[in-house]
Amino acid sequence: ITDNILLNGPTLNVLASENFIHQSMSIIVENAIKKATDVREKVCEWRSPEQLKELLDLELRDGGESESEILQRFTDAIRYSVKTTHPRFFNQLYAGMEPYSMVASFIIEALKPSLYTYEVAPVFTLVEEAVLKKMMELIGWKDGGDGIFNAGIINGLSAAPRLVMFTSQECHYSISKAAALLGIGTKNVYAIPSDERGKMIPSALEEQILSAKSEGAVPFMVNATAGTTVLGAFDPIDVIADICEKHNLWLHVDACWGGAALLSSKHKHLLKGIHRADSVAWNPHKMLMACLQCSAFMVRDKTSLLQRCHSARASYLFQQDKFYDVSYDTGDKSVQCSRKPDAFKIWLMWKALGSRELEQRVDRALAMAGYLAEEIKKREGFRLLMEVAPVIKERMMKKGSMMVGYQPHGEKANFFRMIIISPQVSRQDMDFVLDEINNLGKDL
Amino acid sequence: ITDNILLNGPTLNVLASENFIHQSMSIIVENAIKKATDVREKVCEWRSPEQLKELLDLELRDGGESESEILQRFTDAIRYSVKTTHPRFFNQLYAGMEPYSMVASFIIEALKPSLYTYEVAPVFTLVEEAVLKKMMELIGWKDGGDGIFNAGIINGLSAAPRLVMFTSQECHYSISKAAALLGIGTKNVYAIPSDERGKMIPSALEEQILSAKSEGAVPFMVNATAGTTVLGAFDPIDVIADICEKHNLWLHVDACWGGAALLSSKHKHLLKGIHRADSVAWNPHKMLMACLQCSAFMVRDKTSLLQRCHSARASYLFQQDKFYDVSYDTGDKSVQCSRKPDAFKIWLMWKALGSRELEQRVDRALAMAGYLAEEIKKREGFRLLMEVAPVIKERMMKKGSMMVGYQPHGEKANFFRMIIISPQVSRQDMDFVLDEINNLGKDL
Repeated sequence: ITDNILLNGPTLNVLASENFIHQSMSIIVENAIKKATDVREKVCEWRSPEQLKELLDLELRDGGESESEILQRFTDAIRYSVKTTHPRFFNQLYAGMEPYSMVASFIIEALKPSLYTYEVAPVFTLVEEAVLKKMMELIGWKDGGDGIFNAGIINGLSAAPRLVMFTSQECHYSISKAAALLGIGTKNVYAIPSDERGKMIPSALEEQILSAKSEGAVPFMVNATAGTTVLGAFDPIDVIADICEKHNLWLHVDACWGGAALLSSKHKHLLKGIHRADSVAWNPHKMLMACLQCSAFMVRDKTSLLQRCHSARASYLFQQDKFYDVSYDTGDKSVQCSRKPDAFKIWLMWKALGSRELEQRVDRALAMAGYLAEEIKKREGFRLLMEVAPVIKERMMKKGSMMVGYQPHGEKANFFRMIIISPQVSRQDMDFVLDEINNLGKDL
Repeated sequence: ITDNILLNGPTLNVLASENFIHQSMSIIVENAIKKATDVREKVCEWRSPEQLKELLDLELRDGGESESEILQRFTDAIRYSVKTTHPRFFNQLYAGMEPYSMVASFIIEALKPSLYTYEVAPVFTLVEEAVLKKMMELIGWKDGGDGIFNAGIINGLSAAPRLVMFTSQECHYSISKAAALLGIGTKNVYAIPSDERGKMIPSALEEQILSAKSEGAVPFMVNATAGTTVLGAFDPIDVIADICEKHNLWLHVDACWGGAALLSSKHKHLLKGIHRADSVAWNPHKMLMACLQCSAFMVRDKTSLLQRCHSARASYLFQQDKFYDVSYDTGDKSVQCSRKPDAFKIWLMWKALGSRELEQRVDRALAMAGYLAEEIKKREGFRLLMEVAPVIKERMMKKGSMMVGYQPHGEKANFFRMIIISPQVSRQDMDFVLDEINNLGKDL
């Protein structure tokens, strides 16, 4: 006894929790997996914030609750959560349930590894290396490169001249956020016009580079988007790469959404020229359906650029007098300290499915999108752009029948943005979406 | 059929995977939970990178593998992974297995929510609000504040004058990394000397503030650490707050490790004055044992500072014409886009255990550390600082008997840094650590 506290024996024994864990697993399989992915069930059970606060007892108190109460708490949490793995969830740039990736996620959660050093995460360090190798092979960097699974943050700067970067008006908003965060300033992100289809116009890029130079600013980087957020457009990477070479600019390709097309011999032409990029971001949690989050950042440079940018050589983690090759201690390459082994989520499913099955999924998703576009043309009263989207959205949420995002774009009014990737989705679901929009909006 | 691809019916049915999921769950419970936390099992089964590459078939190929092969793959992955939940894993600032938090993690992985908007994550948006409210209450912000669970990134700047920040020489390396990333520059992070015990010396802080001003620089912020990484020291927050008030500086408290002491009436005096902080970072995945990652960043400001700093108003996510109160769309407050509902991992366990049980855990961990320190004094041949740490570390890893980090500190040679928090740890484990270090090093 020290300080009136009994120190003998553990106070928490995992075996005592075994029953609770088994019961929890059953509830998770039944409600968060089977029911959540069942097309006959609701996508969401809508409650307003006020209603939901009453249904869930959220307050944290001094006393704990019993195991049975806790089982009820999280059963409720599952019930009122949106089922993002439901076949009719088209609301975000991810969808569907991938059993192999989910199991990989469970393993990570149970083992709690963090990728600081090889000693503390040997398996996952090597898994990450294997996945990055494969992805860089697909990008076409013949001599490899370097990379890291991360929340997709680009390198930091503490710069003197006015640095300017270029990206299309259709790019993801993370580009301007990064510029703000890094102290570059959002005003130094020059937005290049895109064409009708959403692709960056290369001649406009070159004009703005020259214009920035004439202002005395220093252009340093171009971001090309492979798969824009709203229109799914692919910037012409090869032509942009020519311009970057001419002006000696860093070419970053944001292939977070569209990178998966590299797996398809039919569609990889959309990313022609990506092997010329200096860096690439690619999120397998999007079109490849790995569990959230799973984001790779890769650089073609092979002179330890990530290490040189981000290393802090913390002596309590990255001791140099270790008994093994410390180049496997990848933690010093990342911006953050704790970092989960997200690569495992894509590795395990890639092992199980093989590149060929992934290719078929990408091809099928694009064919499915093509089918939907054709059907829309056939239906009377449907236009790709709709003005009644907010009302239809409210009705679909309250009914819980499906979830599709909407938004305005340029001068166009609100329209629905369909995200199609999951192999759990069928032609029948496409027809359902059109019928349901029609039903929900027919009185408008 | 479109493009030679059959679109009728889903190609992936979750029910077909049910058997695989059940088998996987059994293996996870047996190997990644029960065996991993069993004190009689090894903490790690050491293999060098070369050996491990041979044991695991890491390569990703065109063809997939069978379910039974995949089950074997991840059983191997678990086998060769470090068991960070093992009672004798003292290597990082987190440890142990918390069943409630683990179950919460599984739910998150299965449901795949991302905290962009209320519509897509209603339950987890409210859970986060409830947890932050409780944490700010413990900090002592009587009128509340604002916050977010995040990977702990501080606000961005695109600044004109030379901004200078202050932190102790003992602070975590993330502080200088953040300064690099934000373009402040690591040279503008002034390191304040600490005393023997590792606490910032307030008079030295004031000297350096005056000195920076005399150089024409603009001091803007002080980081006080509550629980330093190596020595576990608590900077004197109250005195530092006086200095910050006097010079009108932002006071940030890095309570990532030590924040948990706020739950203990016996130990909360260590953080006296934290209610005066302008912002606080606190990671419940450290001393409170929530699953990785679980990091809160809180600001006392109540004028939507986070929103004003980080908002990008992406039109495809944050539509303003929604049918509910869009202030619940918290995604526009964070730096990143996809963000997992990490608050759920601490909420569920807090519900189950109550603040009182959490308090007892903190008290017990500190008593356990006190016991160990006393025992070290009693043992011949033991000093707190040891020169033979790398060799003993190599031997303990290869034997797999326990994991403790080591490092040099200032002018002192390598020593072992013990992290004690898990309720799965007993006095017997403390004695084991001392005996084992003695055994492993007796010939040195």
